[in-house]
Amino acid sequence: MTPGCNRPRPEGFCIWLTGLSGSGKSTTADAVAASLIRSARTVTVLDGDVVRTHISAGLGFSKEDRDANVRRIGFVASEIVRHRGVVICAAISPYRATREECRRMIGPDHFVEVFVDTPLAVCEQRDPKGLYARARRGDIPHFAGLDDPYEPPLHPDVSLDTTAHTAEDNARAVLFRLAEMGFAIDETAYALASSTR
Amino acid sequence: MTPGCNRPRPEGFCIWLTGLSGSGKSTTADAVAASLIRSARTVTVLDGDVVRTHISAGLGFSKEDRDANVRRIGFVASEIVRHRGVVICAAISPYRATREECRRMIGPDHFVEVFVDTPLAVCEQRDPKGLYARARRGDIPHFAGLDDPYEPPLHPDVSLDTTAHTAEDNARAVLFRLAEMGFAIDETAYALASSTR
Repeated sequence: MTPGCNRPRPEGFCIWLTGLSGSGKSTTADAVAASLIRSARTVTVLDGDVVRTHISAGLGFSKEDRDANVRRIGFVASEIVRHRGVVICAAISPYRATREECRRMIGPDHFVEVFVDTPLAVCEQRDPKGLYARARRGDIPHFAGLDDPYEPPLHPDVSLDTTAHTAEDNARAVLFRLAEMGFAIDETAYALASSTR
Repeated sequence: MTPGCNRPRPEGFCIWLTGLSGSGKSTTADAVAASLIRSARTVTVLDGDVVRTHISAGLGFSKEDRDANVRRIGFVASEIVRHRGVVICAAISPYRATREECRRMIGPDHFVEVFVDTPLAVCEQRDPKGLYARARRGDIPHFAGLDDPYEPPLHPDVSLDTTAHTAEDNARAVLFRLAEMGFAIDETAYALASSTR
């Protein structure tokens, strides 16, 4: 038997992290990715920066442009999942309808919605990129959670609290949920998620 | 042993078809895709239309915009190949430098450059979308092969003649070259390529 080939090729899936700016989406994405990578899976993380560099340069911050950006993330994610890859998307993706569109594009059975449920006040206090300060000064219009709506998921597959739990705890919660949903998650992934605390 | 799992998971690769508008890139892409799909591989075809719909809506036809479009195809292709998928890109991609950039992004060992070498006069006579007629009238500026350069590959992995050979013959030539380069090509793929003649 060829080494490493004693089980069926695993299914692809998309972990879709939604939440306010500063909620901890990218930190969570990185922690989940680190665990999966060390358990020998290939993982792509698509966050706003990656996507704006590679497929959305030139898009602005109007509602239409931000929506187009989210849909493009969805398209790239759908292609990765089609080829049985693992992709983690970290995008504010404030509108329910657009997230639903991405879910349909990717395939509902391969889409895991994770709500990074950090309260606005906490996000604004963290303000890692100084965006809330700029938005409050009026420099960034249509800011999700301030003068533009953020529509939280009604039935997320996982909800995370980033104020009471570490990124590694949260990564482990996501991995457990994936396993519950039937995706092949190597046990070493959990161990690694906790050993990095 | 799990059925279908008696060999290592195959490598991903990108078949990059370059050539003038009307040269037969999409027809060739479809024929190659059909053979690979029927031999049980998952294949994505990225052509100009797919990409303009999903990741490049809003890009125009300036040199910069068309170049950005080609690079975005390269980015999506690189992600598919990273996850060991098969992707066929059909894009005029007139500039050598941009194709080289895509080759680097995707990984030179997984990039197969196919020159769809149909003479300009033949492409213009076919003119399946009426683009040459419009370009000759001055409605489409910077048209590759007319008032903008098309830089043919200097060392393509495969060169195809679409005037003397059918799409299925050409598909088979591409599959043979892939096998020569060490990619796992199922023998049924050749059979199917010829049986569809």
